Amino acid sequence: MTVKSNKGVILKAYPKGIPEVDENFELTHRTIDIECLNLKENEFVLRNLYLSIDPYVRVTLHDPALNFMKHGKMISTGQVISGLGVSEVVKTNNPNYKVGDLVYGPIGWEEYSHIKSDDASVFSFMFVNKELLKDTPLSYHASFLRFGGLTSYTSLIDIGKPKEGETIYVSTAAGLTGQLVGQIAKIKGLRVVGSTGSDEKVDFLLNELKFDAAFNYKKLILTSGKTLEVALEHCNRFARVVACGMISQYNIKTPEEGYGIKTLANIVVKSIVFQGFIALDYIGKDIEKEFEKDIIEWVKSGKIIYKETVIDGVENIAKAFVDMLNGKNIGKYVIKIADY
Amino acid sequence: MTVKSNKGVILKAYPKGIPEVDENFELTHRTIDIECLNLKENEFVLRNLYLSIDPYVRVTLHDPALNFMKHGKMISTGQVISGLGVSEVVKTNNPNYKVGDLVYGPIGWEEYSHIKSDDASVFSFMFVNKELLKDTPLSYHASFLRFGGLTSYTSLIDIGKPKEGETIYVSTAAGLTGQLVGQIAKIKGLRVVGSTGSDEKVDFLLNELKFDAAFNYKKLILTSGKTLEVALEHCNRFARVVACGMISQYNIKTPEEGYGIKTLANIVVKSIVFQGFIALDYIGKDIEKEFEKDIIEWVKSGKIIYKETVIDGVENIAKAFVDMLNGKNIGKYVIKIADY
Repeated sequence: MTVKSNKGVILKAYPKGIPEVDENFELTHRTIDIECLNLKENEFVLRNLYLSIDPYVRVTLHDPALNFMKHGKMISTGQVISGLGVSEVVKTNNPNYKVGDLVYGPIGWEEYSHIKSDDASVFSFMFVNKELLKDTPLSYHASFLRFGGLTSYTSLIDIGKPKEGETIYVSTAAGLTGQLVGQIAKIKGLRVVGSTGSDEKVDFLLNELKFDAAFNYKKLILTSGKTLEVALEHCNRFARVVACGMISQYNIKTPEEGYGIKTLANIVVKSIVFQGFIALDYIGKDIEKEFEKDIIEWVKSGKIIYKETVIDGVENIAKAFVDMLNGKNIGKYVIKIADY
Repeated sequence: MTVKSNKGVILKAYPKGIPEVDENFELTHRTIDIECLNLKENEFVLRNLYLSIDPYVRVTLHDPALNFMKHGKMISTGQVISGLGVSEVVKTNNPNYKVGDLVYGPIGWEEYSHIKSDDASVFSFMFVNKELLKDTPLSYHASFLRFGGLTSYTSLIDIGKPKEGETIYVSTAAGLTGQLVGQIAKIKGLRVVGSTGSDEKVDFLLNELKFDAAFNYKKLILTSGKTLEVALEHCNRFARVVACGMISQYNIKTPEEGYGIKTLANIVVKSIVFQGFIALDYIGKDIEKEFEKDIIEWVKSGKIIYKETVIDGVENIAKAFVDMLNGKNIGKYVIKIADY
């Protein structure tokens, strides 16, 4: 009997604003018969193990009628949603991947993903280094040791250009990116100030991550857009502003609803660099290898704490995603889809 | 008789919004007795020849009570306003400057400027290369061949990193900075699209500067802030946005009145660099010398057209400044204060 359950989460309706579990997502109970599946050239089948819950996914769910801020592979209603995660190759007609390989890349929010030959993603899976599994749990390879950590490391080093003695302000500091940026900045000798959305997270930043200062922005300034406005006003000359995400802006219903940043003239008079990026930009560059070397060393030596919450089951993906967009997570949400 | 007229323009009241000539400025009829003036160590006296009318001056006139966007030497009510220009040293107690030297730097909106020893500006005057006066009028040395041109050149090359075949969009394209950026971009093999605020200026861009395309933004999109919003939406991945000035934002009455840019999330998803600078940042760097070499060659060979309007007399400075902020100029306004 080779028929297996292949539950998945499909997009039920394009979200307007922050998505809601029942309104925008639907769990489908499909099956997959791996043995009888006929694979075309270069196709393969993945058994998904860990899925990373990432903010960027929200941008892929925009209603095409909105016609703004497209990013990566856009999802239509009725389609299985796509995210990043770790999987095991269980069937393959692709010479680059053999059965038993552990790979990282764009997978469906589902138990098994049939990677099609006409899908650009066949070219973008990377191998998990099994050697590292002696020192790190597999869940770390779904984000922290890949794009999640790479996002923090590359942007801080390449765009932020941290110098010992400088002060860095980290917003959304209790998320994966923020907590790692703050800790790397501490290693580099900076004074680290973080903001986050609850007092519990402030305690986490101060007591566990050892930030020099932290505050609950909701108590002080009310919105994340306003936080950026005020930060620009307080930048020093030649400040670097690393724009790694704007979760609040991913959820707007129309471009007109976006938060308008009123203090951009500071960029001119203070010679500020305000730069965006995605982790993909750094793949294949030297800094990717430097990241892998440093991050493993820091994790093994305890210089870096990484906080993740592993949640079981495909049926909990949508709730975890919505909770993350509402800022309920401390650290990273990772979904465990199956045992390895 | 060594007493000379030393008319000057003082700040009468902090402007709210775009300044008005009579309300915010006052012409004072002072005199100066150069021979009898007692100069302290390092002081000197300049006979001002040409003054550049620059947008940045607006930022130096902000009411300190506003407490925002301070830039350079702030001017208080009752003080002579400061700008950049070319002058002749007529008396000196500073070993670095001798009588007859032509210098470029921060001077008053006045006929003679007594540069005080406690003024940081004593360190920031540069010499005009008299050799160049065979090929270029002295007025060019008040801005175009100095910070005016340097602004265009350095920002386009260093931040814009132009590549042959790319398209560049230049806003405020008929001002000094814009016209020079567009022409240098043409030399570098780019397709140049410009926007400006009148049909007459559109003709100038198309017919005299040979831009590939140009439009009157007031007819299409209404405000300069909206222009930036739309430009961000249309940027390609890895676009570079060079922020060399935001005149509309220099005239706001309170920070709350600033135009809110709603499309900044494009910076993240498209890996855009949005960078500010001031020409001063590049002084003493290699690129400053490259600019001087290139600009003289381009002007002499006719590869670059430079359009300036020379206006006579200290009494016309305030009107020229207000007209410039209202976008009435085509090309650069330069005030001729005295014959050389």
